[in-house]
Amino acid sequence: MPCRLTSGPRRGAANLGQKGSRPVNGADALLRTLTASGVSICFSNPGTSEMHFVAALDREPGMRGVLCLFEGVATGAADGYGRMAGHPAATLLHLGPGLANGLANLHNARRAGTPLINVVGEHATYHKRFDAPLESDIDSLARPVSGWVRRSARSADVGADAADAVAAARQAPGGVATLILPADVSWSAGGEPASAPALRPAAPVPPDVVCSVADVLRRGDPCLLLLGGSALRRAGLEAASRIAAGTGARLLHETFPARLERGAGLPAVDRLAYLAEFAAAQLSGVRQLILAGARAPVSFFAYPGLPSSLVPSDCQVHQLAAPGDDMPAALDALASLVAPDAQPVRQPARRPALPGSAGRPAGGSADVPADDPADDPAGGSAGGSAGGVGPEEALTAENAAAVIGALLPAGAIVSDEANTSGLWLPAATAGAPPHDWLSLTGGAIGQGLPVATGAAVACPDRPVLALEADGSAMYTISALWTQAREGLDVTTVIFSNRAYAILNMELQRVSAGAGSAAAGADTGDRAGAEAGAGASAGAGAGPAARSLLDLSRPDIDFTALAAGMGVPASRAVTTREFADQLRRALAEPGPHLIEAIVPPVT
Amino acid sequence: MPCRLTSGPRRGAANLGQKGSRPVNGADALLRTLTASGVSICFSNPGTSEMHFVAALDREPGMRGVLCLFEGVATGAADGYGRMAGHPAATLLHLGPGLANGLANLHNARRAGTPLINVVGEHATYHKRFDAPLESDIDSLARPVSGWVRRSARSADVGADAADAVAAARQAPGGVATLILPADVSWSAGGEPASAPALRPAAPVPPDVVCSVADVLRRGDPCLLLLGGSALRRAGLEAASRIAAGTGARLLHETFPARLERGAGLPAVDRLAYLAEFAAAQLSGVRQLILAGARAPVSFFAYPGLPSSLVPSDCQVHQLAAPGDDMPAALDALASLVAPDAQPVRQPARRPALPGSAGRPAGGSADVPADDPADDPAGGSAGGSAGGVGPEEALTAENAAAVIGALLPAGAIVSDEANTSGLWLPAATAGAPPHDWLSLTGGAIGQGLPVATGAAVACPDRPVLALEADGSAMYTISALWTQAREGLDVTTVIFSNRAYAILNMELQRVSAGAGSAAAGADTGDRAGAEAGAGASAGAGAGPAARSLLDLSRPDIDFTALAAGMGVPASRAVTTREFADQLRRALAEPGPHLIEAIVPPVT
Repeated sequence: MPCRLTSGPRRGAANLGQKGSRPVNGADALLRTLTASGVSICFSNPGTSEMHFVAALDREPGMRGVLCLFEGVATGAADGYGRMAGHPAATLLHLGPGLANGLANLHNARRAGTPLINVVGEHATYHKRFDAPLESDIDSLARPVSGWVRRSARSADVGADAADAVAAARQAPGGVATLILPADVSWSAGGEPASAPALRPAAPVPPDVVCSVADVLRRGDPCLLLLGGSALRRAGLEAASRIAAGTGARLLHETFPARLERGAGLPAVDRLAYLAEFAAAQLSGVRQLILAGARAPVSFFAYPGLPSSLVPSDCQVHQLAAPGDDMPAALDALASLVAPDAQPVRQPARRPALPGSAGRPAGGSADVPADDPADDPAGGSAGGSAGGVGPEEALTAENAAAVIGALLPAGAIVSDEANTSGLWLPAATAGAPPHDWLSLTGGAIGQGLPVATGAAVACPDRPVLALEADGSAMYTISALWTQAREGLDVTTVIFSNRAYAILNMELQRVSAGAGSAAAGADTGDRAGAEAGAGASAGAGAGPAARSLLDLSRPDIDFTALAAGMGVPASRAVTTREFADQLRRALAEPGPHLIEAIVPPVT
Repeated sequence: MPCRLTSGPRRGAANLGQKGSRPVNGADALLRTLTASGVSICFSNPGTSEMHFVAALDREPGMRGVLCLFEGVATGAADGYGRMAGHPAATLLHLGPGLANGLANLHNARRAGTPLINVVGEHATYHKRFDAPLESDIDSLARPVSGWVRRSARSADVGADAADAVAAARQAPGGVATLILPADVSWSAGGEPASAPALRPAAPVPPDVVCSVADVLRRGDPCLLLLGGSALRRAGLEAASRIAAGTGARLLHETFPARLERGAGLPAVDRLAYLAEFAAAQLSGVRQLILAGARAPVSFFAYPGLPSSLVPSDCQVHQLAAPGDDMPAALDALASLVAPDAQPVRQPARRPALPGSAGRPAGGSADVPADDPADDPAGGSAGGSAGGVGPEEALTAENAAAVIGALLPAGAIVSDEANTSGLWLPAATAGAPPHDWLSLTGGAIGQGLPVATGAAVACPDRPVLALEADGSAMYTISALWTQAREGLDVTTVIFSNRAYAILNMELQRVSAGAGSAAAGADTGDRAGAEAGAGASAGAGAGPAARSLLDLSRPDIDFTALAAGMGVPASRAVTTREFADQLRRALAEPGPHLIEAIVPPVT
């Protein structure tokens, strides 16, 4: 239990309007506790029941409110913020329906393990029994996405409740904490701000666990180290790379990391494929699977006649550390045991040629990675092959990836919801200057633009690149408005193929009834490769079905949507246009959007 | 339990692709049962786990899939459809996150009592335990908005489950039924379509209840008949008007009716005010309150120091009929007892003068109401007073209401989410030709455009007018795209005051700490009049708070948003521009949008 602060005059009381004499209400106590705990951003979409919280913002200058026009933007932005900042932002949501609108991106945040605090306004305690129109079961809605849910009962409790929420969100490995704040608890006097909660450090992995995993690695069986969570930051990657170099174990990372550090100078690690058939091929022959922050691989969707688990039947699974453990330390300890002299294998700096530039890598000195990359190429991920593409050629997702790889700035944060159009991105950007890659952790589309928004708030000095599928963009398109209001340096590329492309592919397979397995895309939700093989849906898919997966009739003009929300926008039809527009957008501060017209990946 | 149909070749088998021999899977059984039960529209936003349902659409020509780009549009459209059609549409939603995105408008549909069937795709039964990324607790999310939730366990059960869902949705008074359909249950053979369920007619109200209410009316106490639900259709309104004429009882209707028939020739009934202070004034002195399809009035939000119930302490409350009862019959029986010779008081045809047209009512013969209105004016609602406004004058919400009243076509369906800007609409449209008025039943904003979309699908021969606040529009703006694709005759007016205007008002009151009660607006959610009087939030609201309620910086260009989604759009700054644009939009088929630039109501 955190100790309570006195509720006397605060630091900075000069801007409180009334000095000293103003009583501290529940909202004040909440805000003071949050800011004392390092929570300084609140992505907000308030309503009447949150007005006292809103009014209290001007008495707590340590908290910055960021208005979002839809709650899914607020929760997704808080997710992006938490992934990059490493500590939570708050959201402010209006009753059950406001929380409901934010749930899909809270689902993604839960899967990401992002520290995040929801403040959900609620009817006054005595008002609930009257079942007013907005009355709903907030607790039931909150629980599926929250590791911690509490309903503040009294103004005097709010400070301590907020401190507990912070602890629940921040305590490794972090998570979603939801505090339900009744209006009368917010407006009534008697609030008692609490100090920041004490946090336990991440738990060390017991030495005997590390030793037993070391024994597994020494056996010489075909061994795979599957990395996830905090293992995907530089320290973890370097230790894992030493282990691989010293033992011959292979490395893969989980399919949808919350945050992956990658690029020139960092160890390159391939991704476990999204499509079950490809993942099964990657895992084939593995006899020892060591999980380091990742979960045992399962198929994203069920496939008729195929197993849900992707672990080979004769493979043993070992867990080096649980998500809340000190993963980098465990990997380092393991490396010291099994590969004391090994060095990490670093990705060399290598960009695709900018299409049309005669094979010359793009970019000036600003693109030289800060880290000095090692000389030896890392296996399998680097490069790109669009050098032969003419600049006046029609843009494709593959060409666009090459352009992005050629121009990606040092220190970029990439929010990736490109889905099928993103197939070539990992290879094309592998040797770009160091950057962070944020992926769609929970499969609930509509994450990309909000996460980019929150990441840009967390890291105002870093360029943010949102790589976004057109269908997914439409769920939370108003994130663009928040980017414009806040002047965030986000460049959004909409891959406009005018289809739910992966579903079209899946539907064809369902309809064909063919026995062929996965198609080529390696992507997010709605990218499920439910191989229709043998399923009774079989033949018969026709225009009615296809029309539900088609985003044309009418074509969406994303440049108009962006302009309508204050974001400068352009459309690229050729590779040269895309390169020119991307270079310009990256060079200028503030938000930009490029609608990249590309054919669907087939 | 419905009897099962045989699963042999179907009517219309010619377009099935494979005749006779194709096995019936769960998805087929579901679709056949729904269409056999009169469900012919499915507002859809599918994902991989719904692909077999999608593929089955081409084998069931009786079901029309309507693509929505966001689930909140699908559920809101199904609500609008159900309100106008009187029978359910289906939705198709993708797993827990898809349902989550649709919850806010399902909350509104639940409050409206709309018949509606959600089909929520789910992971294969055997796949759930693997906790794949999209796994979530669908049941917990569904229950708060659903009167009926079931999870189909086997393909053979799906038909019967669907019939039960139809029964749950349609059985008076109707409601939201959610059927969770695991992917393997959908794709596996063995589906058994069911026939339409038998529905009980609405229950008659027992004669002794009618007699006891008649006794109340005969007492001569100040008496108010509060109408809601099915009492707000023509038959119920006419019977209620007879009762009022014969007994002196007053009439009011519930604040947010799901569907209200009104206009020239129909009895005019005033609305119970949204703001508690105004409602309390309307109810002051009432000694007998008779509920006919409405609930006992409660404050929309809690107000510090004010009661939640709006029923005067010395008032007795009587319930004529429950929502599932045959309300029009009960009102008619009651009228026969207490006012056998009374006639309903009908609203005369009367429109505001079109501003600038020298007092001449607008419109040609097409605007003459089909019904012959009585001569005597109904109390209190008719008229409008913008005749003195010059046409070049800057548009205001009040002028806009006069223009709408002058031009509203006969048979229009109005989806009202105008919030503060809608203050003058009821009076300005009261004497317009007969029309239906659909309001924000549950307070979850973002309803208006989807409900208009669904109403237009239900009633393709009637003009639909969506009157929409700018802030609310942004939650579900992609409804415009569905309107464009389907060629729906919806005219959307965005009241662009560039603020969450009601919240600004509330914040000022909170901040002032003044004891004054309600402000003037009578509106939807976020219009709560939480009188800050005495609340400790008090002084201190400043720029941080106000910025969260301000929709400028940047201004949203709704004409660009509409054009970007294929809807022709224009902007009106003067009253003449608005009148010209509205007349043109109403005259042309297909969707249109007018951005009406208006100052906030103060």
